Amino acid sequence: MGKEILFNAISLASPSHQWPGLWAHPESNGERYDQFDFWLDFARTAERGLFETVFMADGIGVYDTYEGKPDAVMRTGGFFPMNDPMVIVPAMAVVTENLGFGITGNSTVEPPFLLARRFSTLDQLTRGRISWNVVTGAMRSVAKAVGVEPIPHNERYDVAEEYMDLMYKLWEQSWEDEAVVRDKASRVFADPDRIHKIKHEGRYACEAYHLCEPSPQRTPFLFAAGASSRGTAFAGKHAEAAFMGAFDKGFARRVVDGYRKAAVDAGRAPDDLKVFNAMTVIVAPTEAEAREIEAECREYTSAEGNLAAMSGMIGADLSKYAWDDPVENIESDAIQSLADAMTASKGGRTVRLRDLAEFNGMPGREGYLVGSTSQVCDELISWVDDVGVDGITLTRNLEPRHIKSFVDLVVPELQNRGRYKTEYRPGTLREKMFGAGPRLAPSHYGSRFRR
Amino acid sequence: MGKEILFNAISLASPSHQWPGLWAHPESNGERYDQFDFWLDFARTAERGLFETVFMADGIGVYDTYEGKPDAVMRTGGFFPMNDPMVIVPAMAVVTENLGFGITGNSTVEPPFLLARRFSTLDQLTRGRISWNVVTGAMRSVAKAVGVEPIPHNERYDVAEEYMDLMYKLWEQSWEDEAVVRDKASRVFADPDRIHKIKHEGRYACEAYHLCEPSPQRTPFLFAAGASSRGTAFAGKHAEAAFMGAFDKGFARRVVDGYRKAAVDAGRAPDDLKVFNAMTVIVAPTEAEAREIEAECREYTSAEGNLAAMSGMIGADLSKYAWDDPVENIESDAIQSLADAMTASKGGRTVRLRDLAEFNGMPGREGYLVGSTSQVCDELISWVDDVGVDGITLTRNLEPRHIKSFVDLVVPELQNRGRYKTEYRPGTLREKMFGAGPRLAPSHYGSRFRR
Repeated sequence: MGKEILFNAISLASPSHQWPGLWAHPESNGERYDQFDFWLDFARTAERGLFETVFMADGIGVYDTYEGKPDAVMRTGGFFPMNDPMVIVPAMAVVTENLGFGITGNSTVEPPFLLARRFSTLDQLTRGRISWNVVTGAMRSVAKAVGVEPIPHNERYDVAEEYMDLMYKLWEQSWEDEAVVRDKASRVFADPDRIHKIKHEGRYACEAYHLCEPSPQRTPFLFAAGASSRGTAFAGKHAEAAFMGAFDKGFARRVVDGYRKAAVDAGRAPDDLKVFNAMTVIVAPTEAEAREIEAECREYTSAEGNLAAMSGMIGADLSKYAWDDPVENIESDAIQSLADAMTASKGGRTVRLRDLAEFNGMPGREGYLVGSTSQVCDELISWVDDVGVDGITLTRNLEPRHIKSFVDLVVPELQNRGRYKTEYRPGTLREKMFGAGPRLAPSHYGSRFRR
Repeated sequence: MGKEILFNAISLASPSHQWPGLWAHPESNGERYDQFDFWLDFARTAERGLFETVFMADGIGVYDTYEGKPDAVMRTGGFFPMNDPMVIVPAMAVVTENLGFGITGNSTVEPPFLLARRFSTLDQLTRGRISWNVVTGAMRSVAKAVGVEPIPHNERYDVAEEYMDLMYKLWEQSWEDEAVVRDKASRVFADPDRIHKIKHEGRYACEAYHLCEPSPQRTPFLFAAGASSRGTAFAGKHAEAAFMGAFDKGFARRVVDGYRKAAVDAGRAPDDLKVFNAMTVIVAPTEAEAREIEAECREYTSAEGNLAAMSGMIGADLSKYAWDDPVENIESDAIQSLADAMTASKGGRTVRLRDLAEFNGMPGREGYLVGSTSQVCDELISWVDDVGVDGITLTRNLEPRHIKSFVDLVVPELQNRGRYKTEYRPGTLREKMFGAGPRLAPSHYGSRFRR
């Protein structure tokens, strides 16, 4: 029997995510992203499907490269507006018992002392169901919004390393376990001799006691993603789960190997880092039905919205190119590796601008699955067995249909095949993911900060 | 028939609040401040009592003046640990429909662009039930925790004024109402021509689009408190509700008049600013029973914890003084006005250190009510009729007994006397408070930022 697959459902507090414009589909509830019912329903379904987490992506900039303005993303409701996941997660947590939550938090803009308190509070309230998706760096529009100097790319991970050290000090070092007394008879709540002021100097300065008792996980479960060599090394050292969004299985296998090697280089076991591939799944009882749904999703997806998001990601204004231009003509450092991957996935066919217009829905990727329950399950299992990933991050598409059909069709079939759990493991998110915890593993860098 | 009284229930994400040590009382659930059930139960009771808000106090510093260390507050669980109210409020909001929420947010430490997004997200999710308690300035321990330079006292309100301008730009100026299209037929989510980049330069720099659609209230309902002349002027200009914690009715009347005059000076009507007095209420069917409960509360309250909190507030180490020292001997600028007020409230008797040891529970104040339902109601009504306040902020004591007995005993009696509503008004918190809204009143300074 092969290993069990893990699932995260990714979302974004925006009307649409990877399929800009899809909120306008008659069945979509995307425009209710600003109401509790949207999120409570999503979380309940994810928990019914025994998912590891609802994973909240985030970004506080606006894609304004396309035509030199943000008009296309504003019109199509993809990646803008963008609400704050930090205050949405507590609501979802109230109506669930076992589901974990990923919260994207940007180390460039969030004051570390305040962010540490926010995560500790949430980890306490949820009894250890919180993870932090560590995002570093900031695009120009973010830096201007927050009034900070943009961090040069080569310094970005140095700054992030320092930030992590400060967070570990607050979470792991300030309170000893024995500091928590809570004894009504002696009327002592906490033992001051075991609560320590941490001191940190550098880009960030902090001299303080952490304001919170140790939460179940202390350091929340850590997610990260990094395509660059520094990014991969950062994930290997800090992350307990890493993301990727590979175009094909061959490339994906190299990314998985890269993450595992990075973990080993950081003194950990290769499996101390769970690897999740982002995949689009459109499933129905029959392939024909799934293809129909896919056609509708593509019909409602805005090419302009896709190009606008892509322009922002690669830093090149794609409105300046013609529909049939080969992507090699596009002036962008970031485009070439993408073009190479797309060319490879298309069997060597030339990749043109029109292909990028479909990018966010990701057709053409091997991680883009449209099919019957059985077809989808075969392919999901292949990603685990042949590529070596631990789990899948399901990208949002036509909600709530997408997540409900996945839970109703794919989950029971994977259970029948013995490739999916039939109940949650007890304990915190870390214990559910690793069967061990609730604290950082001794091999994890962060555990060195313990007293 | 006199006017109806408004109520806020104040709390703090800490085991105890004004009564350090009270968490240890056998009936107290204070040590569950880190769990959802504590907050959901509190919010449901407050809504059953038709309260205007659950009001979350906050502070990110630690009182470390007493004995030059924070040991006493740590031991007694009063004001420390201190969790983050921002992620607790969404949980309470999920289980309530009409209750408002006050969230204390410090303009010295929270990045304005991020705080504006957080409040807009919450105001959307709750359909306009959010208020921001604007706190300015930061004690030394806060500045050291967050790694910022402390703001000199005389600059504090200049900085806060600038911060407010930036927040109004984000909330009132960035999105026109008509920017929100949400038309599935034309597939247009928002109209980019009506979403404006705001520009702000100064201590804070921001050049950005607000990331959120206009929330029901746009600018959340605004609370502030300020004892100094600058603080009162700030409240008169920005606040829609102001706090105070007066020792006696005579002094309170002057504070109320001061707030109303400050509103008029800022071009508003005197009643555009609701004034709330903080009061301690211990109520039972008979006065004798109430006195018994009071005796227990006092018995469980730590004098050391009180002195430690007081030392932090006034900036003088009270461990250096003897129990019977008159407070005039204490070297502190802040102590004298307090001593004068206490002396007045004690009919001219000398105020000694031992009186300060009881300060946080506030016995001796006219706003400290212990009695039967009827006695408490008489006195609450007198604060409205004789002093001129609009409402009362109930300080936390022996929870959950305190809030439940208030709702079970005082609320129906006030309703019988025609001095309390029997159902919530429809609409946002602003509409519930003023009967008008949901946006800032045209006379409010913030409304000038509208396009």
